[in-house]
Amino acid sequence: MNSEGPLVIAIDSSTTATKAIIVDASGQVLQTAKNNIQLHTPAIDFYEHNPIRWWETTRDSIAEAVSKLSPKDRERIQAIGITHQRESFACFDKEGKPIRNGILWLDARATKQIQKYGSDHIHNLSGKPPGEPPAIYKLAWLKENEPETLEKAYKIVDVHGYITWNMTGEWISSEACADTLGLFDIRKRTFSDELMNIAGVNREQMSDLKAPGEVMGMLKQELVSAWGLSKSIPVIAGAGDGMAAGIGAAVVTPNIAYLNLGTAVVAGVQSAEYKYSPVFRNYVAGIPGNFIFEVVQHSGAYLAGWFRQALGDPKLLGEPDIRLDEKAEKIPPGCEGLVTLPYWNAVQSPYWDPVARGAVVGWRGTHSRAHMYRSILEAITYEIQMNLSYLQKETGVSLTSLRIMGGGTRSKLWRQMVADITGIPITICLEDEISALGAAIQAMAHTGVFGTQDIAVASKKMARFGDTLEPNLEKNKIYLEVAEVQRQLYPQLKDIFKQLNVLSEKYPGVKPESPKSEL
Amino acid sequence: MNSEGPLVIAIDSSTTATKAIIVDASGQVLQTAKNNIQLHTPAIDFYEHNPIRWWETTRDSIAEAVSKLSPKDRERIQAIGITHQRESFACFDKEGKPIRNGILWLDARATKQIQKYGSDHIHNLSGKPPGEPPAIYKLAWLKENEPETLEKAYKIVDVHGYITWNMTGEWISSEACADTLGLFDIRKRTFSDELMNIAGVNREQMSDLKAPGEVMGMLKQELVSAWGLSKSIPVIAGAGDGMAAGIGAAVVTPNIAYLNLGTAVVAGVQSAEYKYSPVFRNYVAGIPGNFIFEVVQHSGAYLAGWFRQALGDPKLLGEPDIRLDEKAEKIPPGCEGLVTLPYWNAVQSPYWDPVARGAVVGWRGTHSRAHMYRSILEAITYEIQMNLSYLQKETGVSLTSLRIMGGGTRSKLWRQMVADITGIPITICLEDEISALGAAIQAMAHTGVFGTQDIAVASKKMARFGDTLEPNLEKNKIYLEVAEVQRQLYPQLKDIFKQLNVLSEKYPGVKPESPKSEL
Repeated sequence: MNSEGPLVIAIDSSTTATKAIIVDASGQVLQTAKNNIQLHTPAIDFYEHNPIRWWETTRDSIAEAVSKLSPKDRERIQAIGITHQRESFACFDKEGKPIRNGILWLDARATKQIQKYGSDHIHNLSGKPPGEPPAIYKLAWLKENEPETLEKAYKIVDVHGYITWNMTGEWISSEACADTLGLFDIRKRTFSDELMNIAGVNREQMSDLKAPGEVMGMLKQELVSAWGLSKSIPVIAGAGDGMAAGIGAAVVTPNIAYLNLGTAVVAGVQSAEYKYSPVFRNYVAGIPGNFIFEVVQHSGAYLAGWFRQALGDPKLLGEPDIRLDEKAEKIPPGCEGLVTLPYWNAVQSPYWDPVARGAVVGWRGTHSRAHMYRSILEAITYEIQMNLSYLQKETGVSLTSLRIMGGGTRSKLWRQMVADITGIPITICLEDEISALGAAIQAMAHTGVFGTQDIAVASKKMARFGDTLEPNLEKNKIYLEVAEVQRQLYPQLKDIFKQLNVLSEKYPGVKPESPKSEL
Repeated sequence: MNSEGPLVIAIDSSTTATKAIIVDASGQVLQTAKNNIQLHTPAIDFYEHNPIRWWETTRDSIAEAVSKLSPKDRERIQAIGITHQRESFACFDKEGKPIRNGILWLDARATKQIQKYGSDHIHNLSGKPPGEPPAIYKLAWLKENEPETLEKAYKIVDVHGYITWNMTGEWISSEACADTLGLFDIRKRTFSDELMNIAGVNREQMSDLKAPGEVMGMLKQELVSAWGLSKSIPVIAGAGDGMAAGIGAAVVTPNIAYLNLGTAVVAGVQSAEYKYSPVFRNYVAGIPGNFIFEVVQHSGAYLAGWFRQALGDPKLLGEPDIRLDEKAEKIPPGCEGLVTLPYWNAVQSPYWDPVARGAVVGWRGTHSRAHMYRSILEAITYEIQMNLSYLQKETGVSLTSLRIMGGGTRSKLWRQMVADITGIPITICLEDEISALGAAIQAMAHTGVFGTQDIAVASKKMARFGDTLEPNLEKNKIYLEVAEVQRQLYPQLKDIFKQLNVLSEKYPGVKPESPKSEL
């Protein structure tokens, strides 16, 4: 840890909490603080936050983290970086008061609007495949169901926009944050008239934009005083949490991908050029001028947790089961003929089919609990391999390293499986708060401490890595043969999923949807 | 219980044990005794018995059961009936000494011979679809692998044949027992030259034949003395265990089926005419002149046991879990979108595909252990419904009653499900040893106590029933809609099962076969 040199504050305002960290130029975290945010579910599939909490938890977490610093260290603070849950938004009046609760990325109320407006054209234009996350469909829902909300709205902004307004008094957001709403002509990095028209909003209601890494404004004097800082500091334009995590993992060239083995599995690469593909979604990157190609699987580590809860040893109450992992590790690649389609939460990349479901196929009497558990982990990883191969095809660059992060990295079995199935060496990221670290890197780059404001350079200085695992090529060969069979499950079962969905809708006793976990 | 009138002895020599019962004309069992038989597995998929044990366990069980009778009741004994595991056989020299171990119905060594000789023609001629049970393929295996065994064999007989030889000194079997070897021209109820030629045996090596219910010979005087009987008694020609169970359940008209919810599920109807169908197998019935059309599913109650062992609460060690049954009962028909293909032990009726496997499809996060358990029970029962509908189509007679038996009848949930899914009222058979009861009925008919030797008449007098459950027609409608989706799983997954099997054979670490339980 450096005892001199600049420090930066970074916050990550997520679906569950806002975390603040204070970081030095070596990437070491000096202090942290966290405040939870209450999730509201006013109806099935409705997920909301009171947006005031976005700011209150930010303010309180920063205040607490700064308060734990020595007076000398407080003087070292030079900038604030911001990252946050993507796609979520809220509507405000001229005084910045929320008109209604903010609507979150995982809210699924806009099914009809997705069906009505969603198309390959919209995907190509905005970079976002039709589906639940983008705000555009939920805005269209408001247009049809609560037109007064949009009429009254002075500003409709993402989380970063509202936090920036509270910090600086300006309605500004980062291009790499506002883009996540799904209203951008992504090639032009700005709001599209066609998309705003679908959403029922106009340009004046949107925030102003800055490129990531630019200064959005100076921190209000009242906050400087309240937090006990020695001077006002710039608030730096950030990026959504996925893109920020990529920066936190120094994923700044197209031959390296970040891979978040979280509740959802998300993987992405940087690209200097935009490219439309039905397989992935695109975001404006946290490095100016770049794009992120991102694949997403909503049933990631979620499934391991589900399995332990639903089919594990009841006395463990869903807690990790070391013996289960040990048993699963002894089963050979391919799981002795048991293959799984891991679509418990439907499928996103590459098929984006909301009625697809999970399947476990090849059951024999010799199979055990550990087989099903292992088969699920293999399946998630076969999907990662498939999705990464699409990414590589589109960028034309072979991946030489995966930077892994998220809860799933704690499983030795799964870590090695990721290397063996993808055939790519994996390196573990040490920082748990890796999205916040990405925001800190953007802020630190601004200070010029590295002799340049280049965020890519800063990320290489500040990202911190653990072990690298090499793939076992013999196992890789077997896994890929099994994956070829596993890959046929979806086309074969697609129509059956549709019919099961029809039955679910016909018989109300048959619940149509799984409860949304916080993906 | 009658204190007067005739008694009969009946034995059932099964894969695990020989049981003896002593029964009166009302079907009441006065005494029982049982002796286990050691199963030998000299190699993977090889299952053998020392045939001497077939006789020793019969002799000792009868001796024990008779010894428990009062001297007065011993005098009432008038006949012996026999039933036994079907398809199993052994080879003997002129003195009745076994040349090698007997080879059992579940022995799977003859894969190549099944592929070489098995055909629709053989199925049509013998009534037996190509597969593991019939002896013909295992005899062909001996012909190719142990030719000296067949050359040395003075007699090659089913279990009944060997027990009869021990009881009477004659090499005779029942048509309804010898038929199970798969060497009959079933229409003619006798050995076929074409089939004996495939098996590498000749007519002289086979037993003589009697129609079921006929006298095969009188009990040897040494056994009369040893067992403490007052006089010699006739040994009555029986039937294989499945057909005997049908008699024990008074299934003597084509509008009633027996349904054994055992480790394997077996259902059958009587027919006065032979009919070939790819869906089912045919046997010579235990009622003279009739045939049995039988459908079979090797993954029956086996699967409920497997589930409790593999995925149940570990602390129960596979024992029944009352709370699991209760939870499963509360889930609506259709299992909230979770459908199962119950082919853990491959599929027999109606597809006879040895590489088919199990599948569980439609997984969502709301599904629990109880859903998978219920889905498995529903699936076994959807298959029962499908197989019974084929049976009805072939006989042209609608079923008005199912007589259910076997371990699965102890589950209230499953019992009601069978009624609701098939749409047919079910009646529970009270006698646990229902195959032995069938053999007792054949023997009791011979005594003439009912004023006729008609086995059908005797079965109606002696079969004993518990509750009848009516189907819930509203649930039936929903179940049948779900079944229509479930029924698409096999055609969609058939090719994937083939590929998984190829992988299993390619990678020895991937075990090709589940261990055979005693189905």
